[in-house]
Formats: sequence, C-alpha cells, structure tokens
Amino acid sequence: MTDTVTLGDVPAVTQPAWGRSVGFVTPQVQIFTEPFRTASGALIPAPWQLSYETYGKLNADRSNVILLCHALSGDAHAAGRYSVHDSKAGWCEPFIGPGRAFDTERYFVICSNILGGCGGSTGPSSLHPHTGTHWGSRFPILTIGDMVAAQVRLLDALGIERLLAVAGGSLGGMQALEWAASWGDRVRGVIALATTARSSAMAMALSAAGRQAIVSDPDWRGGDYYGTAGPVNGLATARRIGHISYLSAEALEEKFDRRWQHEASPQWSHQPEFAVESYLDYQGRAFVQRFDANSYLVISRAMDYFDLAQRAGGLATAFANTQARFFVATWSSDWLYPERDGELIRQAAQAAGRAVVHYPFHSTKGHDAFLLEDAQLTPPLIDWLASLSA
Amino acid sequence: MTDTVTLGDVPAVTQPAWGRSVGFVTPQVQIFTEPFRTASGALIPAPWQLSYETYGKLNADRSNVILLCHALSGDAHAAGRYSVHDSKAGWCEPFIGPGRAFDTERYFVICSNILGGCGGSTGPSSLHPHTGTHWGSRFPILTIGDMVAAQVRLLDALGIERLLAVAGGSLGGMQALEWAASWGDRVRGVIALATTARSSAMAMALSAAGRQAIVSDPDWRGGDYYGTAGPVNGLATARRIGHISYLSAEALEEKFDRRWQHEASPQWSHQPEFAVESYLDYQGRAFVQRFDANSYLVISRAMDYFDLAQRAGGLATAFANTQARFFVATWSSDWLYPERDGELIRQAAQAAGRAVVHYPFHSTKGHDAFLLEDAQLTPPLIDWLASLSA
Repeated sequence: MTDTVTLGDVPAVTQPAWGRSVGFVTPQVQIFTEPFRTASGALIPAPWQLSYETYGKLNADRSNVILLCHALSGDAHAAGRYSVHDSKAGWCEPFIGPGRAFDTERYFVICSNILGGCGGSTGPSSLHPHTGTHWGSRFPILTIGDMVAAQVRLLDALGIERLLAVAGGSLGGMQALEWAASWGDRVRGVIALATTARSSAMAMALSAAGRQAIVSDPDWRGGDYYGTAGPVNGLATARRIGHISYLSAEALEEKFDRRWQHEASPQWSHQPEFAVESYLDYQGRAFVQRFDANSYLVISRAMDYFDLAQRAGGLATAFANTQARFFVATWSSDWLYPERDGELIRQAAQAAGRAVVHYPFHSTKGHDAFLLEDAQLTPPLIDWLASLSA
Repeated sequence: MTDTVTLGDVPAVTQPAWGRSVGFVTPQVQIFTEPFRTASGALIPAPWQLSYETYGKLNADRSNVILLCHALSGDAHAAGRYSVHDSKAGWCEPFIGPGRAFDTERYFVICSNILGGCGGSTGPSSLHPHTGTHWGSRFPILTIGDMVAAQVRLLDALGIERLLAVAGGSLGGMQALEWAASWGDRVRGVIALATTARSSAMAMALSAAGRQAIVSDPDWRGGDYYGTAGPVNGLATARRIGHISYLSAEALEEKFDRRWQHEASPQWSHQPEFAVESYLDYQGRAFVQRFDANSYLVISRAMDYFDLAQRAGGLATAFANTQARFFVATWSSDWLYPERDGELIRQAAQAAGRAVVHYPFHSTKGHDAFLLEDAQLTPPLIDWLASLSA
C-alpha cells in the first residue's frame, strides 16, 4: 500500500464522485493488562497497546461493525483529518464516510494499527515494559494470526462480539482471510482485496531483498538504532523495491514513461536522469520519515509465513469453520497478488459451501489499484454490504 | 543474465542434446593506442583495452564472423574452459561449439567484454593511464552506442570489415540492435533475444533501486573503494533486485515454491526461513565476488539511456540504414522485456523493409529463458544462420 502522492504534486484529498468525508477524527488507544502470547510462543508482557480509530456510530445491537485492516505501510488513520492543519486525509479516505462504500451513516468502522506496527501500537519501536528500553530486534516474530488475535482482544475490550464484516487489501486482506479461518464464528462477511491466501515465492523474494537491504545497512546496528537516524538507506531501498512491486509496467509507463527529470538532458550523470528515478527516491525518503525499519522486518516476515492452506490442510478446510460470505477483488495488472490468487480464494470458499463473489477488475494501476480504483470498487461493495446486513 | 547454478547444486556444464563443447579456450586482449571519445563527450585516453575470446576459425574471405554480445553480468568468456580445473564453462556454452547454434565448424565467433565492464576490458576498476589510480566514479557515463563503437574498433583491429551476424540477449540484444541502427552496413544479420529497443519505466525503476543500494552503501566511498572490500552489501542488494527481475513468478514457484530452508521450520527468525531467501542470498554473495560495483552503475545507466526510436525519430527510421535481416525472440514469462517489446522490433524492421522473424516462445523461466531455453532456440537459429550465409 502506498501514498497516492505523485512527485511534484501538492498532496490532495481524493474526491470521489460519491459521499462525503468523515471530517475530523481522534486517534484512540486501547491498553491491555494481560500479556500477549504469540504463535511462536514468545510473550509480549503487559501493558501493551493497540492504537485505533473509529468512524460512524455503533448501533444498539452492535451489529454494524466493519473492521478495516491496513496494509504494510498503513496505520489506524484510515479516514478524515486530525486538524485543520492536516493536508492529507487517512489512507482509505475515498471509501469511508457518509454515502461511501463504508457508509458511516450505516456502519461503525474500526481501524487499528497492527501489532508489530509503528503507528501507535506495540511494536519493535516500543519500550519493553520490564527493561524500559526499545524492543528492537528482540520483538517477537509475528504471524498474521497474531495480528488478528490482537484485534480480537481489541474488539473484546470494546464489547464487540461479532463483526458485520472484516475488510482489507494486501496485508489487510490476509488479515481478513485469517479472520475467516480462525475466528469464523465472529464475522459475517470477509472483504479480501488484492491479496492472497498464500505468499508466493516471488512475493517472498521481493520481501527478502528488502529485508536484506535493511539489516545490511550498518546504521541498523542489529536493530538497536533508536535515538539515531537509523537504517534510512536500507529502509529506503526496501521501500523502493516494495513500491515497484505495488505498481505495474503499465502504471509506470502511464505515470512516467521515459520522461527526463531535467530540461537539459541527458546530464550524463549517476544522479536521477529520469522522472521515475526521482519518484522512487522521493518514495524512499518519505517512507523513512514515517516508518520504523524493525516494524518493516517483522511485518514483512509475517506476510512470508502466511499460508492458510498449508496450516489447515487445504484452503477450503481453512474456510470450513465460518458461515461468512466472501467478497474478493483482484486487479489485472497486480503482479504481486494476481487474479489467480483471488480465483483460488473464490474456489476454496465455494468448495467450503460459502457464498462468494470474485471481481477480477481491469486496471493498469498494479497492486495499488485496490486503493486507487474506488470508482470500480465502491458500487459492488455498497450492494454487497447492504445484502450482508439485510 | 545470471548463472544457472542452483543453491546446493554442484555447478555443472549444461549438456544440450546437440553438439560438442569448444573445449579449452584462451582469453585475449586488444590494446588500443588511440583515445576513445564517448557519446557524452568524455575522453578515455589510450592505452585502453578490450578483452575478448574467439571460437572457431575465420574463413578466407572473412565472411563467417558472428559477434556475440554479453548481458549485464556477462563477460568475454562465452564458451569452453580455461583449464582442466575449471568446473564451469562460459556463459553461452550450450549455444557455441561444433553442431551447436553458433557452429564453430562454420562460424568464427567473437565475444568481447564491454567497455565499462570488469572482465578484462577498460572500465571503472581500471587504472587511469595518466594518474595511475583507479577510474572509479570518474569513469565516463556510457551509452550502448559507446559499447558498440568500442566493438567496432576491436573488429577494425582484427581486420574484420563485415559481420555475418551480431547476436545477444538482454543488454547483449540492445547492442545487436544498436549495431543495426549505427553500423548497419557492416552487419548482415541481427539476433536480438529477450531484449528491447527502448528501456521501459519499469526496467529503469528496478535499475535505479539497485544503483541506489550501491551508492548508499557507506563502503562505496564515492566510488573509491578499490583496495577495500567495497560496497558488498549494496551490490548484493542490487543483484538480488536484478535476479528477481530475471526470473518469473512461475520460475520461482517451480524452483522453490514455499519450501522451507531448514528441516525444523519455522525457526521464527529473521534469518532465511525459506529456500528462495537462501538462494537470493547466495546469488548476491556470489555476484560480489566477481563483479565491480562501479561497472554495475555504468552499465545499468547505459541500459536506461537506451531508446533507439527516440534518437532516430522512430524505430523504423533507426533501421533504415541497414540491409540486415532480423531474428527476434521473446519469452512469455519475461516481464522485464515482454513479448510486446519484441513485436515492436519486428514491426519496425518490417516497416523499414527488412526481413524479420519474431519467435514469441512460451517459457516459465522468465527473462533468463534466453540462456536456458537452448532447446527452443537452437533449431530455428541454426536454420536462420544457414539461410543468412547461403
């Protein structure tokens, strides 16, 4: 998942054809007083916390909750602005608000920063409650199952027993599928966008190349870089690799083609000569300002481990314990999680006897389409959610 | 272009169904006593040199020469072995030898290391003849045209006026196309494999991410790292990115899928957990042993600049000054230089009135297919070369 800022553009709030923004929002934090045991057997002692935001109103019978799960570089700030000084709204803005897909006049939307993240939830950049020093590399290796189990604790704390739907794209979609597999009795609908039930060798290779760039940066210091600038070069490289994988050849062609960066070109230099190079540099630099390298390591590793079918002995078996309906969407130019991955989810859900739709959308925007193609996604999503809550 | 060594395999000479190896070969060097002027206007003073190898015998009228151009990580050692201790033959071994596509009983094959390379030709790791110190980052920015102009000087020195064919894959294919565009009266046939006439924004993005990894490695030292280990981490990262782009999702799936690296898995560790990670690490480590980081910068930058159509005002115009016939091949899973790029070359050659064939081969092996699919490539190549020399 990436920003939609294009180099040289003034960041602007996307203005879809429908709906309104939720306006101003307030970040919230839930502190847990019981320790958290990870799938690997490690212990995250209390107190630990998840940051979250909510949009819309919880109804009387608590039946209108949509849990929104963010992607790798996302956070709890899915929609709206914190103040009048905010030039940018949350990462899922075009989808959340009155009249939008996640209609805040009907639904109560919750988005929490994942465990292991760096957007206010407990992660490697947090202080260990016993030692008072940063977790760093001592933070446990996590699974998508751990991230979801932490979300379950949040919902328990908020008194929410059942979700109308859980939704997410990319890593967020993995979480949505994990909900179906592990907490299937607590969810009525699963919205899995631009995602997979099984990280591929290609996805793992890209992920490993990024992690190696981070840990081979001497400024990573074995993970104990807090109080210093940190592995900014390594993290920027990881981001560049990731960003390329979120785009597509067509998207890069449309956006940049072979446009020069300077008027007088070529400059015969190793400095950026082409606009696409400057753009990637910008993406790398911007990312290190807001993201923790150790969180990147933990989250991308969790994505590598994700393989619902392997764990359950078949993907249909993984979906056997839920009555949830599935809404699956893929985009034609997404080479990270291609249409085939969505089709496998559809087939498995169908084999498990679940109601499922798969929209194989056409788009040139690559993996990021799930954030950008709100015009494609919103109409069927509005209908599907309406049928779910009917 | 990459090694075909798979992690854990004993490196083995590919044994195609046809032909024999050229056996033992001797590296050669041509030293030039006139300076070389680059397209950027920079001067490489004499003496400078190109390393090269030859296979087969030059015929009496010097009409049987095939110039073979190597790809980014290649060198002049295309076939055969240097000694009985060599466990590995040259990078193009399955294609060169008696009875093979480049039949050394008919053709005289020349392969030279490109200008800017690090396989014996003058490049950034060479000593500047005036200062006696390594060129480093002071080595001029090059174009594909410069590399080819240097090859022309080599052929002049060898007394070879005309080529029967120029052949290459990837960067080597760019050189072959450059021959057609810039030295079209000196070549009868152009063999362009898994290549493009125009580097795409996607290819440039991957290339830029790799270069940034190198120059942001503190051990790069502004390019003056000779006598030290050099930017081994940055170069390994660049190689990992490159290597992923040379493979395909299918190739990675076939080779590794989600196979664990250790018997007792998961180990819940940031160390390689999956075989694909170990493989990439191996590729990165092996590459830094044999390749110069500054050469990587220069060569990948030259590839970025490559756009024959832009220079000539249309690709057909670029091919207007040659009578050469074209043999073009692409592979279905090559996402770096996809089938469309080969089709554009075919259309342009046809529009220029040239005889051209384009083989859009099916393969799961990605970009590297041009080195690996000798069974697909050899039969049509043998026929085409025979018709060319008829």
